[in-house]
Amino acid sequence: MQRVKIAILGIGNVGTGVWKILTMNKEQVSARSGYDIEVAKVLVRDKKKKRNVEVPEEVLTDSFDDIINDDSIKIVVELMGGVDPAKNYMLKAIKSGKHVVTANKFALATCGKELAEAAEEFGVKLNYEASVAGGIPIIHGITESLTANKILNIVGIINGTTNYILTKMTLNGMEFEDALKEAQQKGYAEADPTSDVEGYDAMYKIGILSSLSFGGYIDVDSIYREGITSINSIDIEYAKEFGYVIKLLAIAKQNDGLVELRVHPAMIPATHPLANVNDSFNAIFIKGNAVGDLMLYGRGAGDLPTGSAVVGDIIAILKNGLDKNVERNTFASCPLRIKDMEDTRCEYYIRVTASDTPGTLGAISNVFGGNGVSLASVIQKGKGDVNVPLVFVTHETLEKNINKSIKEIKAMESVVSVDNLIRVENI
Amino acid sequence: MQRVKIAILGIGNVGTGVWKILTMNKEQVSARSGYDIEVAKVLVRDKKKKRNVEVPEEVLTDSFDDIINDDSIKIVVELMGGVDPAKNYMLKAIKSGKHVVTANKFALATCGKELAEAAEEFGVKLNYEASVAGGIPIIHGITESLTANKILNIVGIINGTTNYILTKMTLNGMEFEDALKEAQQKGYAEADPTSDVEGYDAMYKIGILSSLSFGGYIDVDSIYREGITSINSIDIEYAKEFGYVIKLLAIAKQNDGLVELRVHPAMIPATHPLANVNDSFNAIFIKGNAVGDLMLYGRGAGDLPTGSAVVGDIIAILKNGLDKNVERNTFASCPLRIKDMEDTRCEYYIRVTASDTPGTLGAISNVFGGNGVSLASVIQKGKGDVNVPLVFVTHETLEKNINKSIKEIKAMESVVSVDNLIRVENI
Repeated sequence: MQRVKIAILGIGNVGTGVWKILTMNKEQVSARSGYDIEVAKVLVRDKKKKRNVEVPEEVLTDSFDDIINDDSIKIVVELMGGVDPAKNYMLKAIKSGKHVVTANKFALATCGKELAEAAEEFGVKLNYEASVAGGIPIIHGITESLTANKILNIVGIINGTTNYILTKMTLNGMEFEDALKEAQQKGYAEADPTSDVEGYDAMYKIGILSSLSFGGYIDVDSIYREGITSINSIDIEYAKEFGYVIKLLAIAKQNDGLVELRVHPAMIPATHPLANVNDSFNAIFIKGNAVGDLMLYGRGAGDLPTGSAVVGDIIAILKNGLDKNVERNTFASCPLRIKDMEDTRCEYYIRVTASDTPGTLGAISNVFGGNGVSLASVIQKGKGDVNVPLVFVTHETLEKNINKSIKEIKAMESVVSVDNLIRVENI
Repeated sequence: MQRVKIAILGIGNVGTGVWKILTMNKEQVSARSGYDIEVAKVLVRDKKKKRNVEVPEEVLTDSFDDIINDDSIKIVVELMGGVDPAKNYMLKAIKSGKHVVTANKFALATCGKELAEAAEEFGVKLNYEASVAGGIPIIHGITESLTANKILNIVGIINGTTNYILTKMTLNGMEFEDALKEAQQKGYAEADPTSDVEGYDAMYKIGILSSLSFGGYIDVDSIYREGITSINSIDIEYAKEFGYVIKLLAIAKQNDGLVELRVHPAMIPATHPLANVNDSFNAIFIKGNAVGDLMLYGRGAGDLPTGSAVVGDIIAILKNGLDKNVERNTFASCPLRIKDMEDTRCEYYIRVTASDTPGTLGAISNVFGGNGVSLASVIQKGKGDVNVPLVFVTHETLEKNINKSIKEIKAMESVVSVDNLIRVENI
């Protein structure tokens, strides 16, 4: 059997998974790739650090030059994360004619165009199945399987941490802070959970999926983003009452040349397949104009599931005999035109605290009506207290009409506070 | 843009879908494949027949020779179904150096080895994403995305007709015969529904998935197969009582070099993602030793969903510039060793009608015990009648122990009949 040398940059969680898979599934990997894979170098910051897998000392290096200058290394597997220096290392590898496999959503979402163009120019492959939803083959799905479709929309639960927290809040009645603490203890959330709970992670991922689905690049910072920190057990309870479940969704829709992109918590019908995606599982619901509804469900993180995607990408390169890349670059081409968030349409759940005086409910309803917002349900509870919670669910309307209404409602004398606004997606 | 000529054999349901997609998504298909696709010939039996799509007269032909002798046709898309003459047409195309795309589960399940070996020998591609589960990219998933995994098991709902019938029986309380009639009226079931309701269709499909997942070929007739005709509304009701839903499952498991293969109705937990796969939808649950649990859900039939897979396969060939096939053949290699059904393990639901005399329940329980079968639940209803239904659910046990028990129970004087036996899969 032919041998091939590869290098791994970084051996944290995903790198460990890749190492384990190359060891435990050696036979399968060789049979399917046609190559006996040798990990010739592993780039680390500290060669002395204790690791979960036993990497031979002579394989460890703290110098990228050892890798870039070694012509016998044909594939560079970037698993460091972050843009700097990962992006430059990938560019250098590409320019040296090495194929690149990466799990780096951050680098791809922000510099995907540059990386993909370089790969095209230098005739090497840039594979990144692991960058979105771990072991779920969504990138392959879009770029290889659904190519006959015009993709109409994508609705995904693509952040495992927030899904774990929301599942605990929904099924076990926990409050956000306690669920977050448990997620941290179990290793599902970082010590600084900002990237997950504020929706940045999901934003990068939906950015990548949009580029691939709609054939253009986007500025990820232009994606509307809202995290789950404002979700309260009260909202979870109201959602249940209405037959909904709250999930952090990443949504991309294409219509009339405009792309609608948003990441935010949303109420979805409890009967929808996405509603039963629990714990740290991920799922992506995708609608194509030929295939109709399609859902991919699986583990969006973890050493082995993510490693599965990385090693699959390595095998894909080897299967074709390390050939020159002849495929056109799906990433680059033109920028996508993004729809203004104010022009998007949705149904909305709005929770208000107001004084229990006659006419308050009517006055608030009038504000909605005056702004062209029609109400689907109203709930008023806790009669007799000085202040009572009022909950409104609207029919579909424009975001700008809601924003205007909220502003006016906040200014009302009888309104103590507008406590929450959650979009309702009747997918 | 470069042009390429292709031929379609048969323009029934799927062929119509392919034609529609090539028309409505012309722009996407060209951009992604790099080719302007011309359907140069469409093989039909009767050129005069009225069709759902307008195929120009000069494109229609009733002679395969017009296609095989035309060197400008680079891809043959076989959508006739059946083995004869589809298989020979595919072999001829392969031997003339034409790439082949097919949706033919029957030909692949029974002659996949021969076709794949020929494609390998003549350096052409044989793509068949559409042969299993219509628009769901399960073939791609196994052969391209999950290559880093040892596939441990596959549990699929891969026949839309039976899933439609079972959904109607479960959610609308219909009896089998009425649900079947409705399925026929809606075009989900054939006039002769045998292939679907007796599990043949699912048997071919799981045969193909097993070959690809476990790397060998199998004799599909050796797959244990049971249809859904014996499922009764009483069983559906008992399933609900136990927290289960009845689905027609296709199961493949690999263990110690032996492959367990079976198609039969089964009770699965109502909370499992597969339990909510309703109507004519398909879903495949797959467990890999790296990726863990993965589910793919979507439309398993229909002109556009299946056409989506066919056109995706055409694009995959074109994307690589109609290159010679260099990939190794996943189909052929060695035969898979199939586990004897008697040696498989399962939990079982058994419904018996027996005379309501003292000691009957105890006597039946003793038969189970004597054959090493331990009971998980027993339900006796309708006390006071001459004959009463008795329902048993066992703990996991060997199929041969159940068969022996059933034989002995049938011979008991107090037993009127053993009415049903349904496997319980606590997936």
